[in-house]
Amino acid sequence: MAFTEFRPLDEKSLIEYIKATPSLSSKLDNNFDDLKIKEVGDGNLNFVYIVSGSTGSFVIKQALPYIRCIGASWPMTKERAYFEAVTLKEQGRLCPEHVPEVYHFDHTMSLIGMRYLEPPHIILRKGLIAGIEYPLLAEHMSEFMARTLFFTSLLYNSTTNHKRAVAEFCGNVELCRLTEQVVFSDPYKVSEYNRWTSPYLDSDAEMVREDNTLKLKVAELKSMFCERAQALIHGDLHTGSVMVTCESTQVIDPEFAFYGPMGFDIGAFLGNLILAFFAQDGHADQGNDRKTYKEWILRVIDETWNLFHKKFIELWDEHKDGHGEAYLSAIYNNLELQQLVREKFMKDLFHDMLGFGAAKMIRRIVGVAHVEDFESIKDAGKRADCERRALELAKMLLKDREKFQGITEVVTAIQKIQL
Amino acid sequence: MAFTEFRPLDEKSLIEYIKATPSLSSKLDNNFDDLKIKEVGDGNLNFVYIVSGSTGSFVIKQALPYIRCIGASWPMTKERAYFEAVTLKEQGRLCPEHVPEVYHFDHTMSLIGMRYLEPPHIILRKGLIAGIEYPLLAEHMSEFMARTLFFTSLLYNSTTNHKRAVAEFCGNVELCRLTEQVVFSDPYKVSEYNRWTSPYLDSDAEMVREDNTLKLKVAELKSMFCERAQALIHGDLHTGSVMVTCESTQVIDPEFAFYGPMGFDIGAFLGNLILAFFAQDGHADQGNDRKTYKEWILRVIDETWNLFHKKFIELWDEHKDGHGEAYLSAIYNNLELQQLVREKFMKDLFHDMLGFGAAKMIRRIVGVAHVEDFESIKDAGKRADCERRALELAKMLLKDREKFQGITEVVTAIQKIQL
Repeated sequence: MAFTEFRPLDEKSLIEYIKATPSLSSKLDNNFDDLKIKEVGDGNLNFVYIVSGSTGSFVIKQALPYIRCIGASWPMTKERAYFEAVTLKEQGRLCPEHVPEVYHFDHTMSLIGMRYLEPPHIILRKGLIAGIEYPLLAEHMSEFMARTLFFTSLLYNSTTNHKRAVAEFCGNVELCRLTEQVVFSDPYKVSEYNRWTSPYLDSDAEMVREDNTLKLKVAELKSMFCERAQALIHGDLHTGSVMVTCESTQVIDPEFAFYGPMGFDIGAFLGNLILAFFAQDGHADQGNDRKTYKEWILRVIDETWNLFHKKFIELWDEHKDGHGEAYLSAIYNNLELQQLVREKFMKDLFHDMLGFGAAKMIRRIVGVAHVEDFESIKDAGKRADCERRALELAKMLLKDREKFQGITEVVTAIQKIQL
Repeated sequence: MAFTEFRPLDEKSLIEYIKATPSLSSKLDNNFDDLKIKEVGDGNLNFVYIVSGSTGSFVIKQALPYIRCIGASWPMTKERAYFEAVTLKEQGRLCPEHVPEVYHFDHTMSLIGMRYLEPPHIILRKGLIAGIEYPLLAEHMSEFMARTLFFTSLLYNSTTNHKRAVAEFCGNVELCRLTEQVVFSDPYKVSEYNRWTSPYLDSDAEMVREDNTLKLKVAELKSMFCERAQALIHGDLHTGSVMVTCESTQVIDPEFAFYGPMGFDIGAFLGNLILAFFAQDGHADQGNDRKTYKEWILRVIDETWNLFHKKFIELWDEHKDGHGEAYLSAIYNNLELQQLVREKFMKDLFHDMLGFGAAKMIRRIVGVAHVEDFESIKDAGKRADCERRALELAKMLLKDREKFQGITEVVTAIQKIQL
């Protein structure tokens, strides 16, 4: 049986496909007797199957030529599976402890076979809703971001290698366009796809659409997103793209990857932690007021940035005499100057991160794709209160991000709005 | 006779080549009797032949696989001829009045056949040294820059088309690397290729190599040059890349073209006009103190920016409801907001331009490639005085460019240093 052209698989044809694919069937020791296949794709875009037998397991992810959560009316290239596979392999090479191994990629079928992240791995977002603390989360995510962003930037690479990679990822333009639309455009105009907790947030959504300063600021970020090839970014690094246990943190789903601004990834992650924070009041009940958990989230935000900062600078220092061409050691040849350029770089990155993080928060409240953190709050009035506070913070961050000197000030701002 | 692989042509083999190439021989009406061939390449990189007969003429430009002014010891891809040809055609399409027509391109031979810019066309730099006023220069150059930069940016193009073009021009990486080295790196470190008017400027050159603030600022610009794909830029738009008569202005030699920051082109042009200004005192003699001419140069600087600003905004306004995706009209939907985003955009571009212009000035005084404006001043002491004033201004612009509110303030700063 050969699959010489694309066809969407179902559970039955998937078995035939696995049998015909040595890199997959070998993972099961060619033992198909008690094979279980379960479709688990809860994302917006793809089909995901867990395949498990008595002698092995893996995950199969197949991209279809449209956006799953909207349907065939919103076409989307299945070439994204190629960029996802390339990125999983590259990020896996740079940070193997936090990226699932790829066993198989089939370009024609837009299909990736990769490690099954076994229980008790769950999507981080679900863990945050459930109020579970992950003691290593900040350590692991800062490690993932520092390594994947540093090693794919001009701080580490020659211009020649950088431009070759930039050119290749220009091919993932359709996914970039989707982000441009749903993050940087739709929330700021009337769009059929936008929605919000109505009628509670009707005037809030309208205020976003009529705020000139906000629109001025989001335009800057959109241009940076479209023009600045700073590093290979995951492109969709929210808390739904991370699977966790108390010991393990795994980053998945990099189908939006391209060479873009580093701040977009860090902002996506921290912005979604802030959303999780503001959603907690909606999950509080008599048994658990979530106060301690909210403090833990704030600590993770603080620690993730601080650890990222530390690790990134350490990598820079370690490789300052390497083949990276942005800051040649013959020019940046004294400690004071190295200190100066690194402070400038990290300050700019911090402000980029705040801007992108804020834009990602706003779009989750008044744009097309919402987050389960809020969606799972049944009482619409209560949900709207939580969302409004998050929106207020995000607008302030987007407008005044240059005024923030460090992550502690951001945490303080979050606490103030909460009161 | 076939040229199936690359070979450098001389005057004899060039005739054979022309005879075998219909798109060239037809320009001469296939009349080769009184053909004259003259090698005129005075640039740093290529061989250039003027081919003229009684019935027609053209120019042949061939790239060799090294940098001509240094020799085989500095290899440089001849693929640059491809990017030059593509850019000449694209810029010619966008601004036909100011770009010579391409008649023929041979990828294998790295050879371009194009319009011969007949006398009295001369290189603008030579005209500036001779003290000739060009009344239409600001008008024409602002037109060229406004049209080529606007129409290749995301203000006009969809992201899809933009990323496709960005990817293609990533292939011109070797020329980008040359710029990175000679503009953004070598002047700020000890390099075998650097030179300056010694011993007069020995301490000035050393001060550039030991100025932490300057190095911090040039790092920002280098990153922008390497990472920001804002528009298809010429990449080498100094006064030696422009040919002029009193009525005609023609931009040539875009072999450094790629998708980079717009400010690099505008800065290159205005920076080289500022160099021409500071060189005038070295060309003054009893017959001509060059005072009036210096005033004319300052007026051209002022007018070029102001006209560029006006034309660019006009193009933006004309196409604000087009397929450009940076500022969707559904979002930027009121006059006040449009005003706000355009002011922000032009202010940022102005500061980028000042930074890049300053970097281009500095490298022409203490880097590898100097300008004839200064080189033609025989008295080394006098030349050093002129160069030092230009260097002083450039350092100030590079360090404090954000403090300048408009081009008039820049002109005032030039005049102040002159006194």
